[in-house]
Amino acid sequence: MTTIDLNSDLGEGFGAWSMGDDGAMLDVVSSANVACGFHAGDPTIMLTTCRSAAERGVAVGAHVAYRDLVGFGRRPVHVTPDELYADVVHQLGALIATARVAGTAVTYVKPHGALYNTACADPVQAEAVTRAVADIDPTLAVLALPGSELLLAAERHGLRAVGEAFADRAYEPDGSLVPRSRPGSVLHDPDAVAERVLRMVTEGVVTSVDGSDISVRADSVCVHGDSPDAVAMARAIRALLTGHGVDIAPFAPPAP
Amino acid sequence: MTTIDLNSDLGEGFGAWSMGDDGAMLDVVSSANVACGFHAGDPTIMLTTCRSAAERGVAVGAHVAYRDLVGFGRRPVHVTPDELYADVVHQLGALIATARVAGTAVTYVKPHGALYNTACADPVQAEAVTRAVADIDPTLAVLALPGSELLLAAERHGLRAVGEAFADRAYEPDGSLVPRSRPGSVLHDPDAVAERVLRMVTEGVVTSVDGSDISVRADSVCVHGDSPDAVAMARAIRALLTGHGVDIAPFAPPAP
Amino acid sequence: MTTIDLNSDLGEGFGAWSMGDDGAMLDVVSSANVACGFHAGDPTIMLTTCRSAAERGVAVGAHVAYRDLVGFGRRPVHVTPDELYADVVHQLGALIATARVAGTAVTYVKPHGALYNTACADPVQAEAVTRAVADIDPTLAVLALPGSELLLAAERHGLRAVGEAFADRAYEPDGSLVPRSRPGSVLHDPDAVAERVLRMVTEGVVTSVDGSDISVRADSVCVHGDSPDAVAMARAIRALLTGHGVDIAPFAPPAP
Amino acid sequence: MTTIDLNSDLGEGFGAWSMGDDGAMLDVVSSANVACGFHAGDPTIMLTTCRSAAERGVAVGAHVAYRDLVGFGRRPVHVTPDELYADVVHQLGALIATARVAGTAVTYVKPHGALYNTACADPVQAEAVTRAVADIDPTLAVLALPGSELLLAAERHGLRAVGEAFADRAYEPDGSLVPRSRPGSVLHDPDAVAERVLRMVTEGVVTSVDGSDISVRADSVCVHGDSPDAVAMARAIRALLTGHGVDIAPFAPPAP
Repeated sequence: MTTIDLNSDLGEGFGAWSMGDDGAMLDVVSSANVACGFHAGDPTIMLTTCRSAAERGVAVGAHVAYRDLVGFGRRPVHVTPDELYADVVHQLGALIATARVAGTAVTYVKPHGALYNTACADPVQAEAVTRAVADIDPTLAVLALPGSELLLAAERHGLRAVGEAFADRAYEPDGSLVPRSRPGSVLHDPDAVAERVLRMVTEGVVTSVDGSDISVRADSVCVHGDSPDAVAMARAIRALLTGHGVDIAPFAPPAP
Repeated sequence: MTTIDLNSDLGEGFGAWSMGDDGAMLDVVSSANVACGFHAGDPTIMLTTCRSAAERGVAVGAHVAYRDLVGFGRRPVHVTPDELYADVVHQLGALIATARVAGTAVTYVKPHGALYNTACADPVQAEAVTRAVADIDPTLAVLALPGSELLLAAERHGLRAVGEAFADRAYEPDGSLVPRSRPGSVLHDPDAVAERVLRMVTEGVVTSVDGSDISVRADSVCVHGDSPDAVAMARAIRALLTGHGVDIAPFAPPAP
Repeated sequence: MTTIDLNSDLGEGFGAWSMGDDGAMLDVVSSANVACGFHAGDPTIMLTTCRSAAERGVAVGAHVAYRDLVGFGRRPVHVTPDELYADVVHQLGALIATARVAGTAVTYVKPHGALYNTACADPVQAEAVTRAVADIDPTLAVLALPGSELLLAAERHGLRAVGEAFADRAYEPDGSLVPRSRPGSVLHDPDAVAERVLRMVTEGVVTSVDGSDISVRADSVCVHGDSPDAVAMARAIRALLTGHGVDIAPFAPPAP
Repeated sequence: MTTIDLNSDLGEGFGAWSMGDDGAMLDVVSSANVACGFHAGDPTIMLTTCRSAAERGVAVGAHVAYRDLVGFGRRPVHVTPDELYADVVHQLGALIATARVAGTAVTYVKPHGALYNTACADPVQAEAVTRAVADIDPTLAVLALPGSELLLAAERHGLRAVGEAFADRAYEPDGSLVPRSRPGSVLHDPDAVAERVLRMVTEGVVTSVDGSDISVRADSVCVHGDSPDAVAMARAIRALLTGHGVDIAPFAPPAP
């Protein structure tokens, strides 16, 4: 039986503010990238999100970020590698404890926003992030762009490196993502997106922007949770996958 | 041989700001109450402080606080018990991970400032704090005012409850502290304070404000680190104690 | 012709987070209580909100608050009167400059959340708030609960004191609000609420919880903007008022 | 009689944290660059600093910065020009109101740290900063590096552009500053620095790193306030200047 993980960014509210419909998304995905307080997520929201994930058997990952609430972690912050190391240790430690008291465990790390982009491209930041993860718990997985510096660094540290595909992003013929600044980089039709994900999962291919089919290998598919139609799209993906006999399950489930 | 622990608040800088002379204090005390980011302490300072403590064999405690940087945790914040529980889990988890990568371990929890006062007096807040500690790691100790609600709650949760005395505070005849708002509540003469601590440790008594000797039982003595003469006073205490054959050692040393 | 002001809390997002539907509310109300950064509102949101208000001829008021982003200004913060004075000066100054570059002007001040409650009840905090307002600009109005300490203090400082009624809150027979902790304290039916507001405005009465009509004198009616049905309720109020020939206009319009 | 302005960064504490010895520096300098809350400075510190400056006849400038407390404004933040415009309006407005209630007035703007560097080099950020200043008050001066994009933009907006020299920095033969990353970029001997400043002011020259005298034209000399020997150096400069008959006075005094 084919199995795939669906991951989404969750717990991205702060205080009185919410972001997306976490309850609905947790019924769809199998892995929750939980904000750790640096770009979003206060301790109460982190705990509530972990508890909700635990109830549904959804795996919990640490969505570590640059410290930038007002910028939602979307802007690069010029931290030194030592500062980044300490920042990742801090966020990961806070979520590990939170997940534990919620009856589950953090099983992977996925950087958020600008840190995702930087750590996937820059070996120095990739090294700082993965060294922090390995020093805390070498059984944790790292989820990121296939072939990225971040996954290479994860492997150097003996961490499990997990590649992800993107449900709603257009791909270049070389397998990279079409930059968000370009028209057509983000897909909006739930049914079309669901069909793409089904092909990714069952055939290992996706149609790139020049019409050619390219190979895409991923152990998880990222489903965005904060756009207006996020829930509808996520549900369409799940329904189509399960309708075709694909099992949706965490790539790194918490130990029972 | 008589043994006593000296504890002090450390790692209370933030970014470019520092507070007190941590390096000097770490050479004097045996337990460091390390700020966890809510009233002071960013991840880099937390890591640096844990590493310095580890090098010197100084025990690390989590100095958890209300979330209030601008107020330095000195003002009560009206959190619900559930919010306080999540806040303590978050801070404690962040410091546990930080201490681990620094080569040591958190062995106790001591609330800071307004949270110390509230959790010592209010059984509801005491319960929230100690439940968080017990849920994360039941081998942790809790350091607080002898006879406080916080230590009672710690015992209910099966945690080791450790009482502390205060080196530079005047005592009422009933053993409580003279409120800071009253003249003479804080003592400033290093030699006089050192003599008081020596009597506390070797005789178990201290002279109260009415001149009577009262019993004071403590496994640790709190030495303040952020006043101008803090280092001089701490050194005077240590010198007098060691000169009288008292061993200064953590009440909860990290496992070797 | 009868004229009334409708005021609502606006600009209460922060960074990537939004709160309520500001665009829709600005088409309904005549006065916008604009968050000043302490409980919500970053500089960009403040500027966008002021520009939107200016385009529609909606008056701008400073919605000053305690400094507490994670608590959304809903928790009392134990500030001294001097700190509160400085906090109000800071927030008010920031919004005055922002409104100016947006082509409008701040014409009144209304405290938010916990500061509203405290400053309406506590003469010391009321004095600190109104002294700050008067020191910056004695032509500003203060909008608050009729008969409150805050409006009394405003009058002592020679400021225009403006009382407000609440569209969706139940009243006690003595004219005070039913506390939110009590069932039935907040009304949810848009049509019923609109009818209440019409009577407040045209007859100067509202039916209290014991069924008796009581007098309510207000120069402005507060319409909440952050509940799910806020826009529908606000539109129902505006439609009914204008349908009965009531003019909706700011109590303190910016100079043309 | 020769007159020169000495400026220094002041009010850079936050909450319980202090930075430098503001009281001592205010007795030496004639212009205070007052932090506005984004990199340092809470409302109470801003007010206290403005009051102290007012008492001594020291001019108040807005030391606007990127929003980055933990980085102390020393790291570039990737803001859009519109965000930067709003950020400057916010900070400047807050300080204008604060200075007013302190009995003085903001007379100039000097960006801090990373924003200083960026706005001096990048015409887009320079335009955003100066447009904000001009929109709020076209009588304000802008203090920055001579010949910088920031001063060019200030002139385009009709603002008074004021160049500053640096007391303790080494100069290249072309008149630029030796980068801080290079050895010898910062001078530490108070007497030698004082002699340099005297020559700058009375002869208009400074000896560059290759030993040649170069022309330096400045209406203000920046004296740093946060290094350990800052006060001693500032006092040495003031003493030598006044001993040689140089008058120390603000380049933009508040109206009497």
